[in-house]
Amino acid sequence: MSELIFYTNPQSRGRIVRWMLEEVGAPYRTEVVGYGPAMKGPDYLAINPMGKVPAIRHGGAVVTEAAAICAYLADAFPAAGLAPPTTERADYYRWLFFAAGPIEAAVTDKTLKAVPTPEQRAFVGYGCYENVVDVLDVLLSERPYFCGESFTAADVYAGSQIAFGLMFKSIEERPSFRRYVDRIQARPAYARAAELDDAAAAAA
Amino acid sequence: MSELIFYTNPQSRGRIVRWMLEEVGAPYRTEVVGYGPAMKGPDYLAINPMGKVPAIRHGGAVVTEAAAICAYLADAFPAAGLAPPTTERADYYRWLFFAAGPIEAAVTDKTLKAVPTPEQRAFVGYGCYENVVDVLDVLLSERPYFCGESFTAADVYAGSQIAFGLMFKSIEERPSFRRYVDRIQARPAYARAAELDDAAAAAA
Ligand SMILES: N[C@@H](CCC(=O)N[C@@H](CS)C(=O)NCC(=O)O)C(=O)O
Ligand SMILES: N[C@@H](CCC(=O)N[C@@H](CS)C(=O)NCC(=O)O)C(=O)O
Repeated sequence: MSELIFYTNPQSRGRIVRWMLEEVGAPYRTEVVGYGPAMKGPDYLAINPMGKVPAIRHGGAVVTEAAAICAYLADAFPAAGLAPPTTERADYYRWLFFAAGPIEAAVTDKTLKAVPTPEQRAFVGYGCYENVVDVLDVLLSERPYFCGESFTAADVYAGSQIAFGLMFKSIEERPSFRRYVDRIQARPAYARAAELDDAAAAAA
Repeated sequence: MSELIFYTNPQSRGRIVRWMLEEVGAPYRTEVVGYGPAMKGPDYLAINPMGKVPAIRHGGAVVTEAAAICAYLADAFPAAGLAPPTTERADYYRWLFFAAGPIEAAVTDKTLKAVPTPEQRAFVGYGCYENVVDVLDVLLSERPYFCGESFTAADVYAGSQIAFGLMFKSIEERPSFRRYVDRIQARPAYARAAELDDAAAAAA
Protein backbone atom coordinates (compact mmCIF):
# COMPACT_ATOMS: atom_id res chain seq x y z
CA MET A 1 0.00 0.00 0.00
CA SER A 2 1.27 3.50 -0.88
CA GLU A 3 2.30 5.68 2.02
CA LEU A 4 -0.11 8.52 2.77
CA ILE A 5 1.32 11.72 4.27
CA PHE A 6 -0.85 14.60 5.45
CA TYR A 7 0.71 18.09 5.58
CA THR A 8 -1.31 20.37 7.77
CA ASN A 9 -1.56 22.86 10.54
CA PRO A 10 -4.17 22.08 13.19
CA GLN A 11 -5.55 25.62 12.82
CA SER A 12 -6.24 25.70 9.10
CA ARG A 13 -8.34 24.35 6.25
CA GLY A 14 -6.31 21.21 6.96
CA ARG A 15 -9.10 20.32 9.41
CA ILE A 16 -11.28 19.57 6.39
CA VAL A 17 -8.77 17.05 5.10
CA ARG A 18 -8.23 15.52 8.55
CA TRP A 19 -11.94 14.83 8.67
CA MET A 20 -11.86 13.31 5.18
CA LEU A 21 -8.91 11.11 6.15
CA GLU A 22 -10.80 9.88 9.20
CA GLU A 23 -13.85 9.13 7.04
CA VAL A 24 -11.69 7.15 4.64
CA GLY A 25 -10.06 5.15 7.41
CA ALA A 26 -6.72 4.52 5.67
CA PRO A 27 -3.58 4.85 7.80
CA TYR A 28 -1.76 8.15 7.31
CA ARG A 29 1.13 10.05 8.83
CA THR A 30 0.67 13.69 9.85
CA GLU A 31 3.34 16.34 9.29
CA VAL A 32 2.53 19.59 11.03
CA VAL A 33 3.85 22.54 9.02
CA GLY A 34 4.33 25.77 10.97
CA TYR A 35 3.05 29.07 9.57
CA GLY A 36 5.75 31.37 8.25
CA PRO A 37 9.27 30.12 7.46
CA ALA A 38 8.45 26.37 7.44
CA MET A 39 5.47 26.82 5.10
CA LYS A 40 7.42 29.17 2.81
CA GLY A 41 10.69 27.19 2.87
CA PRO A 42 12.05 25.12 -0.04
CA ASP A 43 11.11 21.72 1.45
CA TYR A 44 7.45 22.53 1.72
CA LEU A 45 7.31 24.65 -1.45
CA ALA A 46 8.40 21.50 -3.30
CA ILE A 47 5.12 19.95 -2.11
CA ASN A 48 2.92 23.00 -2.54
CA PRO A 49 4.45 25.95 -4.39
CA MET A 50 1.60 28.10 -3.00
CA GLY A 51 3.22 27.68 0.44
CA LYS A 52 -0.12 26.75 1.98
CA VAL A 53 -1.64 23.83 3.82
CA PRO A 54 -3.29 21.37 3.44
CA ALA A 55 -1.55 18.99 1.05
CA ILE A 56 -1.18 15.24 0.85
CA ARG A 57 1.34 12.90 -0.67
CA HIS A 58 0.07 9.46 -1.63
CA GLY A 59 2.83 7.26 -3.03
CA GLY A 60 4.31 9.43 -5.77
CA ALA A 61 1.28 11.71 -6.12
CA VAL A 62 0.88 15.11 -4.47
CA VAL A 63 -2.50 16.78 -4.12
CA THR A 64 -3.11 20.34 -2.91
CA GLU A 65 -6.39 22.28 -2.56
CA ALA A 66 -8.71 21.00 0.16
CA ALA A 67 -11.54 20.24 -2.29
CA ALA A 68 -9.22 18.36 -4.65
CA ILE A 69 -7.85 16.32 -1.75
CA CYS A 70 -11.37 15.33 -0.68
CA ALA A 71 -12.29 14.30 -4.24
CA TYR A 72 -8.99 12.46 -4.66
CA LEU A 73 -9.31 10.49 -1.42
CA ALA A 74 -12.93 9.55 -2.15
CA ASP A 75 -11.80 8.02 -5.45
CA ALA A 76 -8.58 6.49 -4.15
CA PHE A 77 -10.41 4.69 -1.32
CA PRO A 78 -13.70 3.63 -2.91
CA ALA A 79 -14.56 1.25 -0.07
CA ALA A 80 -15.46 4.27 2.07
CA GLY A 81 -18.33 4.99 -0.31
CA LEU A 82 -17.81 8.76 -0.30
CA ALA A 83 -18.10 9.37 -4.04
CA PRO A 84 -21.01 8.31 -6.25
CA PRO A 85 -20.20 6.10 -9.27
CA THR A 86 -18.69 8.12 -12.13
CA THR A 87 -21.98 7.81 -14.05
CA GLU A 88 -23.89 9.67 -11.30
CA ARG A 89 -21.79 12.65 -10.35
CA ALA A 90 -23.98 15.59 -11.37
CA ASP A 91 -24.76 16.81 -7.85
CA TYR A 92 -21.41 15.71 -6.52
CA TYR A 93 -19.32 17.82 -8.87
CA ARG A 94 -21.87 20.62 -8.95
CA TRP A 95 -21.71 21.25 -5.22
CA LEU A 96 -18.03 20.47 -4.75
CA PHE A 97 -17.19 23.11 -7.37
CA PHE A 98 -19.87 25.46 -6.09
CA ALA A 99 -18.12 25.34 -2.72
CA ALA A 100 -14.58 25.71 -4.08
CA GLY A 101 -15.63 28.52 -6.42
CA PRO A 102 -18.66 30.65 -5.47
CA ILE A 103 -18.90 29.95 -1.72
CA GLU A 104 -15.19 30.42 -1.10
CA ALA A 105 -14.96 33.58 -3.24
CA ALA A 106 -18.15 35.13 -1.84
CA VAL A 107 -17.02 34.64 1.74
CA THR A 108 -13.49 35.85 1.00
CA ASP A 109 -14.72 39.01 -0.73
CA LYS A 110 -17.17 39.68 2.10
CA THR A 111 -14.27 39.47 4.53
CA LEU A 112 -12.16 41.74 2.29
CA LYS A 113 -15.16 44.11 2.07
CA ALA A 114 -15.08 43.79 -1.73
CA VAL A 115 -18.76 43.85 -2.65
CA PRO A 116 -19.53 43.54 -6.39
CA THR A 117 -21.79 46.28 -7.75
CA PRO A 118 -25.00 45.16 -9.49
CA GLU A 119 -23.21 45.49 -12.86
CA GLN A 120 -20.19 43.51 -11.65
CA ARG A 121 -22.41 40.65 -10.45
CA ALA A 122 -22.87 39.56 -14.07
CA PHE A 123 -19.19 38.63 -14.51
CA VAL A 124 -18.36 37.77 -10.89
CA GLY A 125 -18.75 33.99 -10.77
CA TYR A 126 -20.66 34.02 -7.48
CA GLY A 127 -22.89 36.96 -8.41
CA CYS A 128 -23.23 38.24 -4.86
CA TYR A 129 -22.95 36.77 -1.39
CA GLU A 130 -26.75 36.85 -0.91
CA ASN A 131 -27.33 34.69 -4.02
CA VAL A 132 -24.92 32.07 -2.78
CA VAL A 133 -26.45 31.89 0.69
CA ASP A 134 -30.00 31.76 -0.65
CA VAL A 135 -29.18 28.95 -3.07
CA LEU A 136 -27.60 26.94 -0.27
CA ASP A 137 -30.50 27.64 2.07
CA VAL A 138 -33.09 26.32 -0.40
CA LEU A 139 -30.99 23.25 -1.18
CA LEU A 140 -30.25 22.31 2.43
CA SER A 141 -33.88 22.84 3.40
CA GLU A 142 -34.85 20.22 0.83
CA ARG A 143 -32.30 17.47 1.31
CA PRO A 144 -30.15 16.10 4.12
CA TYR A 145 -26.90 16.03 2.12
CA PHE A 146 -25.52 17.76 -0.94
CA CYS A 147 -26.08 14.67 -3.08
CA GLY A 148 -29.48 13.80 -1.60
CA GLU A 149 -29.82 10.92 0.85
CA SER A 150 -26.15 9.93 1.02
CA PHE A 151 -23.28 11.63 2.77
CA THR A 152 -20.35 12.15 0.38
CA ALA A 153 -17.02 13.96 0.17
CA ALA A 154 -19.02 16.99 -1.06
CA ASP A 155 -20.45 17.24 2.47
CA VAL A 156 -17.00 17.06 4.03
CA TYR A 157 -15.78 19.93 1.90
CA ALA A 158 -18.81 22.15 1.32
CA GLY A 159 -20.14 21.32 4.78
CA SER A 160 -16.86 22.39 6.37
CA GLN A 161 -17.08 25.69 4.56
CA ILE A 162 -20.56 26.28 5.94
CA ALA A 163 -19.48 25.20 9.42
CA PHE A 164 -16.42 27.50 9.36
CA GLY A 165 -18.63 30.29 8.03
CA LEU A 166 -21.08 29.96 10.92
CA MET A 167 -18.23 29.72 13.42
CA PHE A 168 -16.37 32.78 12.12
CA LYS A 169 -19.67 34.58 11.36
CA SER A 170 -18.66 35.05 7.74
CA ILE A 171 -21.83 33.12 6.80
CA GLU A 172 -25.03 34.16 8.51
CA GLU A 173 -27.14 31.82 10.63
CA ARG A 174 -30.02 30.09 8.87
CA PRO A 175 -31.97 27.23 10.46
CA SER A 176 -31.18 24.96 7.49
CA PHE A 177 -27.45 25.63 7.87
CA ARG A 178 -27.44 24.91 11.59
CA ARG A 179 -29.41 21.69 11.20
CA TYR A 180 -27.15 20.57 8.36
CA VAL A 181 -23.94 21.32 10.25
CA ASP A 182 -25.25 19.50 13.34
CA ARG A 183 -26.11 16.51 11.15
CA ILE A 184 -22.72 16.19 9.50
CA GLN A 185 -20.70 16.99 12.63
CA ALA A 186 -22.47 14.15 14.46
CA ARG A 187 -20.39 11.68 12.47
CA PRO A 188 -17.79 9.72 14.47
CA ALA A 189 -15.06 10.55 11.93
CA TYR A 190 -15.70 14.25 12.47
CA ALA A 191 -15.34 13.86 16.23
CA ARG A 192 -12.11 11.85 15.86
CA ALA A 193 -10.66 14.45 13.50
CA ALA A 194 -11.59 17.37 15.75
CA GLU A 195 -10.04 15.62 18.74
CA LEU A 196 -6.77 14.96 16.89
CA ASP A 197 -6.52 18.54 15.63
CA ASP A 198 -7.45 20.06 18.97
CA ALA A 199 -4.76 17.96 20.65
CA ALA A 200 -2.20 18.98 18.01
CA ALA A 201 -3.16 22.64 18.45
CA ALA A 202 -2.81 22.37 22.22
CA ALA A 203 0.60 20.70 21.86
CA ALA A 204 1.89 23.45 19.56
CA MET B 1 -29.32 7.55 -24.74
CA SER B 2 -30.22 10.40 -22.35
CA GLU B 3 -30.93 13.75 -23.94
CA LEU B 4 -28.20 16.34 -23.40
CA ILE B 5 -29.24 20.01 -23.29
CA PHE B 6 -26.75 22.85 -23.11
CA TYR B 7 -27.90 26.19 -21.65
CA THR B 8 -25.58 28.96 -22.65
CA ASN B 9 -24.99 32.37 -24.02
CA PRO B 10 -22.41 32.58 -26.80
CA GLN B 11 -20.66 35.40 -24.93
CA SER B 12 -20.07 33.75 -21.58
CA ARG B 13 -18.22 31.03 -19.69
CA GLY B 14 -20.55 28.79 -21.68
CA ARG B 15 -17.82 28.79 -24.32
CA ILE B 16 -15.80 26.54 -22.01
CA VAL B 17 -18.61 23.99 -21.92
CA ARG B 18 -19.23 24.22 -25.67
CA TRP B 19 -15.61 23.26 -26.19
CA MET B 20 -15.94 20.38 -23.74
CA LEU B 21 -19.09 19.17 -25.52
CA GLU B 22 -17.27 19.24 -28.85
CA GLU B 23 -14.37 17.29 -27.31
CA VAL B 24 -16.79 14.68 -25.98
CA GLY B 25 -18.56 14.31 -29.31
CA ALA B 26 -22.00 13.35 -27.94
CA PRO B 27 -25.01 14.94 -29.63
CA TYR B 28 -26.50 17.86 -27.69
CA ARG B 29 -29.11 20.55 -28.14
CA THR B 30 -28.23 24.18 -27.43
CA GLU B 31 -30.61 26.58 -25.68
CA VAL B 32 -29.39 30.16 -25.80
CA VAL B 33 -30.43 32.02 -22.65
CA GLY B 34 -30.50 35.81 -22.93
CA TYR B 35 -28.91 37.97 -20.25
CA GLY B 36 -31.37 39.75 -18.00
CA PRO B 37 -35.02 38.65 -17.75
CA ALA B 38 -34.62 35.23 -19.41
CA MET B 39 -31.69 34.26 -17.20
CA LYS B 40 -33.42 35.54 -14.06
CA GLY B 41 -36.88 34.17 -14.89
CA PRO B 42 -38.54 31.18 -13.19
CA ASP B 43 -37.95 28.72 -16.04
CA TYR B 44 -34.21 29.16 -16.02
CA LEU B 45 -33.92 29.61 -12.25
CA ALA B 46 -35.41 26.10 -11.98
CA ILE B 47 -32.29 24.90 -13.82
CA ASN B 48 -29.76 27.17 -12.13
CA PRO B 49 -31.01 29.15 -9.13
CA MET B 50 -27.91 31.35 -9.48
CA GLY B 51 -29.46 32.69 -12.70
CA LYS B 52 -26.22 32.18 -14.57
CA VAL B 53 -24.97 30.24 -17.57
CA PRO B 54 -23.62 27.70 -18.36
CA ALA B 55 -25.67 24.71 -17.24
CA ILE B 56 -26.45 21.33 -18.72
CA ARG B 57 -29.26 18.85 -18.34
CA HIS B 58 -28.39 15.23 -19.05
CA GLY B 59 -31.40 12.95 -18.72
CA GLY B 60 -32.70 13.82 -15.24
CA ALA B 61 -29.46 15.36 -14.00
CA VAL B 62 -28.65 19.07 -13.97
CA VAL B 63 -25.10 20.35 -13.63
CA THR B 64 -24.07 23.97 -13.14
CA GLU B 65 -20.59 25.50 -12.68
CA ALA B 66 -18.37 25.31 -15.73
CA ALA B 67 -15.70 23.24 -13.95
CA ALA B 68 -18.27 20.77 -12.63
CA ILE B 69 -19.78 20.39 -16.09
CA CYS B 70 -16.36 19.61 -17.58
CA ALA B 71 -15.66 17.01 -14.87
CA TYR B 72 -19.14 15.54 -15.24
CA LEU B 73 -18.95 15.20 -19.02
CA ALA B 74 -15.48 13.65 -18.89
CA ASP B 75 -16.87 10.94 -16.58
CA ALA B 76 -20.19 10.52 -18.35
CA PHE B 77 -18.50 9.97 -21.73
CA PRO B 78 -15.38 7.97 -20.87
CA ALA B 79 -14.72 7.03 -24.49
CA ALA B 80 -13.44 10.57 -25.09
CA GLY B 81 -10.55 9.82 -22.70
CA LEU B 82 -10.67 13.24 -21.02
CA ALA B 83 -10.40 12.08 -17.40
CA PRO B 84 -7.69 9.83 -15.98
CA PRO B 85 -8.80 6.61 -14.25
CA THR B 86 -10.16 7.29 -10.74
CA THR B 87 -6.98 5.80 -9.25
CA GLU B 88 -4.80 8.46 -10.93
CA ARG B 89 -6.55 11.76 -10.40
CA ALA B 90 -4.07 13.68 -8.23
CA ASP B 91 -3.07 16.24 -10.86
CA TYR B 92 -6.50 16.23 -12.45
CA TYR B 93 -8.39 17.30 -9.35
CA ARG B 94 -5.57 19.46 -8.09
CA TRP B 95 -5.56 21.70 -11.15
CA LEU B 96 -9.29 21.62 -11.82
CA PHE B 97 -9.90 22.90 -8.28
CA PHE B 98 -6.94 25.26 -8.44
CA ALA B 99 -8.60 26.85 -11.47
CA ALA B 100 -12.12 26.96 -10.00
CA GLY B 101 -10.82 28.29 -6.68
CA PRO B 102 -7.55 30.28 -6.65
CA ILE B 103 -7.29 31.30 -10.32
CA GLU B 104 -10.91 32.41 -10.57
CA ALA B 105 -10.85 34.28 -7.24
CA ALA B 106 -7.47 35.93 -7.89
CA VAL B 107 -8.55 37.22 -11.29
CA THR B 108 -11.95 38.36 -9.98
CA ASP B 109 -10.42 40.25 -7.07
CA LYS B 110 -7.84 41.83 -9.36
CA THR B 111 -10.68 43.06 -11.57
CA LEU B 112 -12.59 44.31 -8.48
CA LYS B 113 -9.36 45.98 -7.33
CA ALA B 114 -9.56 44.02 -4.07
CA VAL B 115 -5.93 43.26 -3.31
CA PRO B 116 -5.30 41.23 -0.12
CA THR B 117 -2.79 42.80 2.25
CA PRO B 118 0.24 40.68 3.24
CA GLU B 119 -1.61 39.67 6.44
CA GLN B 120 -4.78 38.77 4.56
CA ARG B 121 -2.86 36.52 2.15
CA ALA B 122 -2.63 33.90 4.89
CA PHE B 123 -6.38 33.28 4.97
CA VAL B 124 -7.21 34.22 1.37
CA GLY B 125 -7.25 30.88 -0.44
CA TYR B 126 -5.26 32.15 -3.43
CA GLY B 127 -2.73 34.09 -1.34
CA CYS B 128 -2.16 36.78 -3.95
CA TYR B 129 -2.52 37.05 -7.70
CA GLU B 130 1.29 36.93 -8.19
CA ASN B 131 1.54 33.57 -6.37
CA VAL B 132 -1.10 32.05 -8.60
CA VAL B 133 0.48 33.27 -11.81
CA ASP B 134 3.96 32.16 -10.77
CA VAL B 135 2.78 28.67 -9.83
CA LEU B 136 1.06 28.30 -13.21
CA ASP B 137 4.08 29.65 -15.06
CA VAL B 138 6.43 27.10 -13.50
CA LEU B 139 3.99 24.25 -14.11
CA LEU B 140 3.26 25.11 -17.74
CA SER B 141 6.95 25.63 -18.45
CA GLU B 142 7.56 22.05 -17.34
CA ARG B 143 4.73 20.09 -18.95
CA PRO B 144 2.53 20.35 -22.03
CA TYR B 145 -0.77 19.76 -20.19
CA PHE B 146 -2.02 20.08 -16.61
CA CYS B 147 -1.87 16.32 -16.11
CA GLY B 148 1.45 15.84 -17.91
CA GLU B 149 1.55 14.33 -21.40
CA SER B 150 -2.20 13.94 -21.90
CA PHE B 151 -4.83 16.55 -22.63
CA THR B 152 -7.75 16.27 -20.17
CA ALA B 153 -10.87 18.15 -19.08
CA ALA B 154 -8.59 20.07 -16.70
CA ASP B 155 -7.04 21.70 -19.78
CA VAL B 156 -10.45 22.61 -21.18
CA TYR B 157 -11.41 24.36 -17.95
CA ALA B 158 -8.16 25.73 -16.53
CA GLY B 159 -6.85 26.38 -20.02
CA SER B 160 -9.94 28.41 -20.88
CA GLN B 161 -9.40 30.52 -17.80
CA ILE B 162 -5.85 31.26 -18.86
CA ALA B 163 -6.96 31.98 -22.43
CA PHE B 164 -9.75 34.33 -21.26
CA GLY B 165 -7.28 35.97 -18.90
CA LEU B 166 -4.80 36.70 -21.70
CA MET B 167 -7.59 37.92 -23.97
CA PHE B 168 -9.13 40.27 -21.38
CA LYS B 169 -5.68 41.17 -20.01
CA SER B 170 -6.71 40.08 -16.52
CA ILE B 171 -3.82 37.59 -16.62
CA GLU B 172 -0.48 38.92 -17.77
CA GLU B 173 1.43 37.55 -20.76
CA ARG B 174 4.05 34.92 -20.02
CA PRO B 175 5.72 32.87 -22.78
CA SER B 176 4.61 29.62 -21.13
CA PHE B 177 0.97 30.80 -21.07
CA ARG B 178 0.98 31.82 -24.71
CA ARG B 179 2.59 28.57 -25.85
CA TYR B 180 0.15 26.55 -23.75
CA VAL B 181 -2.91 28.41 -25.03
CA ASP B 182 -1.74 28.03 -28.64
CA ARG B 183 -1.26 24.29 -28.03
CA ILE B 184 -4.72 23.65 -26.60
CA GLN B 185 -6.55 25.96 -28.99
CA ALA B 186 -5.06 24.09 -31.95
CA ARG B 187 -7.45 21.22 -31.20
CA PRO B 188 -10.19 20.67 -33.81
CA ALA B 189 -12.89 20.57 -31.09
CA TYR B 190 -11.83 24.04 -29.93
CA ALA B 191 -12.13 25.38 -33.48
CA ARG B 192 -15.57 23.80 -33.96
CA ALA B 193 -16.80 25.23 -30.65
CA ALA B 194 -15.48 28.72 -31.38
CA GLU B 195 -17.13 28.66 -34.80
CA LEU B 196 -20.50 27.61 -33.37
CA ASP B 197 -20.39 30.25 -30.62
CA ASP B 198 -19.21 32.99 -32.96
CA ALA B 199 -22.08 32.17 -35.33
CA ALA B 200 -24.58 32.18 -32.44
CA ALA B 201 -23.22 35.53 -31.23
CA ALA B 202 -23.48 37.01 -34.72
CA ALA B 203 -27.07 35.73 -35.05
CA ALA B 204 -28.10 37.30 -31.71
N1 LIG C 1 -7.16 27.14 -1.77
C1 LIG C 1 -6.46 26.47 -0.68
C2 LIG C 1 -6.30 27.45 0.44
C3 LIG C 1 -5.33 27.00 1.46
C4 LIG C 1 -5.02 28.10 2.48
O1 LIG C 1 -5.23 29.29 2.23
N2 LIG C 1 -4.46 27.68 3.65
C5 LIG C 1 -4.12 28.62 4.67
C6 LIG C 1 -4.58 28.08 6.04
S1 LIG C 1 -6.32 27.83 6.11
C7 LIG C 1 -2.60 28.75 4.74
O2 LIG C 1 -1.87 27.78 4.58
N3 LIG C 1 -2.12 29.98 5.00
C8 LIG C 1 -0.74 30.24 5.22
C9 LIG C 1 -0.13 31.20 4.25
O3 LIG C 1 -0.78 31.55 3.24
O4 LIG C 1 0.98 31.60 4.50
C10 LIG C 1 -7.25 25.25 -0.25
O5 LIG C 1 -8.47 25.22 -0.44
O6 LIG C 1 -6.66 24.30 0.26
N1 LIG D 1 -19.29 30.06 -11.23
C1 LIG D 1 -20.01 30.05 -12.47
C2 LIG D 1 -20.05 31.45 -13.04
C3 LIG D 1 -21.05 31.61 -14.14
C4 LIG D 1 -21.20 33.07 -14.55
O1 LIG D 1 -20.85 34.00 -13.81
N2 LIG D 1 -21.76 33.27 -15.76
C5 LIG D 1 -21.98 34.61 -16.27
C6 LIG D 1 -21.56 34.68 -17.72
S1 LIG D 1 -19.83 34.30 -17.93
C7 LIG D 1 -23.47 34.91 -16.23
O2 LIG D 1 -24.30 34.07 -16.49
N3 LIG D 1 -23.80 36.18 -15.89
C8 LIG D 1 -25.14 36.67 -15.93
C9 LIG D 1 -25.65 37.16 -14.62
O3 LIG D 1 -25.03 36.93 -13.57
O4 LIG D 1 -26.73 37.74 -14.64
C10 LIG D 1 -19.37 29.07 -13.43
O5 LIG D 1 -18.17 28.80 -13.29
O6 LIG D 1 -20.06 28.52 -14.30
